Amino acid sequence: MAERGMMQVYTGDGKGKTTAAIGLAVRALGAGKRVFIAQFVKGMRYSELNLLERLEGLELRRYGRDCFIVKKPEQADIDLARQGLSEATAILKEGRYDLVILDEACIALYYHLFSLDELLAAIKGRAPRVEVVVTGRYAPQGLIDAADLVTEMREVKHYYQKGVQAREGIEK
Amino acid sequence: MAERGMMQVYTGDGKGKTTAAIGLAVRALGAGKRVFIAQFVKGMRYSELNLLERLEGLELRRYGRDCFIVKKPEQADIDLARQGLSEATAILKEGRYDLVILDEACIALYYHLFSLDELLAAIKGRAPRVEVVVTGRYAPQGLIDAADLVTEMREVKHYYQKGVQAREGIEK
Repeated sequence: MAERGMMQVYTGDGKGKTTAAIGLAVRALGAGKRVFIAQFVKGMRYSELNLLERLEGLELRRYGRDCFIVKKPEQADIDLARQGLSEATAILKEGRYDLVILDEACIALYYHLFSLDELLAAIKGRAPRVEVVVTGRYAPQGLIDAADLVTEMREVKHYYQKGVQAREGIEK
Repeated sequence: MAERGMMQVYTGDGKGKTTAAIGLAVRALGAGKRVFIAQFVKGMRYSELNLLERLEGLELRRYGRDCFIVKKPEQADIDLARQGLSEATAILKEGRYDLVILDEACIALYYHLFSLDELLAAIKGRAPRVEVVVTGRYAPQGLIDAADLVTEMREVKHYYQKGVQAREGIEK
């Protein structure tokens, strides 16, 4: 019997969610697996892109604008997220990638860029061997219920409290 | 004034500590920074090594045997960890690497392979711009107090509970 792919969720207010997903991507690539990363909401050029984009076996697509959503999403945020979900749905179903990372998909849910039902349908419709990783704070209970593994990154202490800004190569 | 390097700790019983550190390494490398990873306790060949060892600007050394410590550490565990701390201390002080990751150093502390005072002395003696990341469950309070950023990876749900073994390219 083929191994069944699991669904992992990384949520919470602490640092380490996206980086954990990147680490999983590196581990999977190191084992010769193929990885697809869909980054929702954030379209900024994080430093890791410079390296990730060069790695064989990895495809990364971004479905966000080059800024954070401040109060309310704009139509462009919704359009990009919906395009991302549509593409990710097809990729999950097709099964050509062993690991599919839906980075910040929880934030897309939080801003109602797409619905939990739509996200769960995409995940449940995946080819059986595909491992799925979903990240972002505010994971809703329905996503947690459907997941096989959930880690909450809990912020115990953060230097933002000391007024340190996001630094290139560390936070961005 | 040169930017001061912070000290980050990733602890807790949840999945994602080492992978978050790897993600930070990838981000730093993507920004053209140099990264040193010391892996304590575990000497097994995790899949990510295949990729990490090929990356320019990254050096990775392992200071553990090819198995987990079961009940009590053996002399070889102690010797390897002490060698690792000694080498890491020199590397932190020298400042040639922008990011130094002490993976599973909390586990080395937990097994008394070296002391918290020794670890803190190494970290405090670093060149000012070096960013340090310490991972592993059971981070002692003294380490948390000294850190600038602490994330607890909290296990909300884990498929180990369902009897799923560690899988190549996902857990190892």
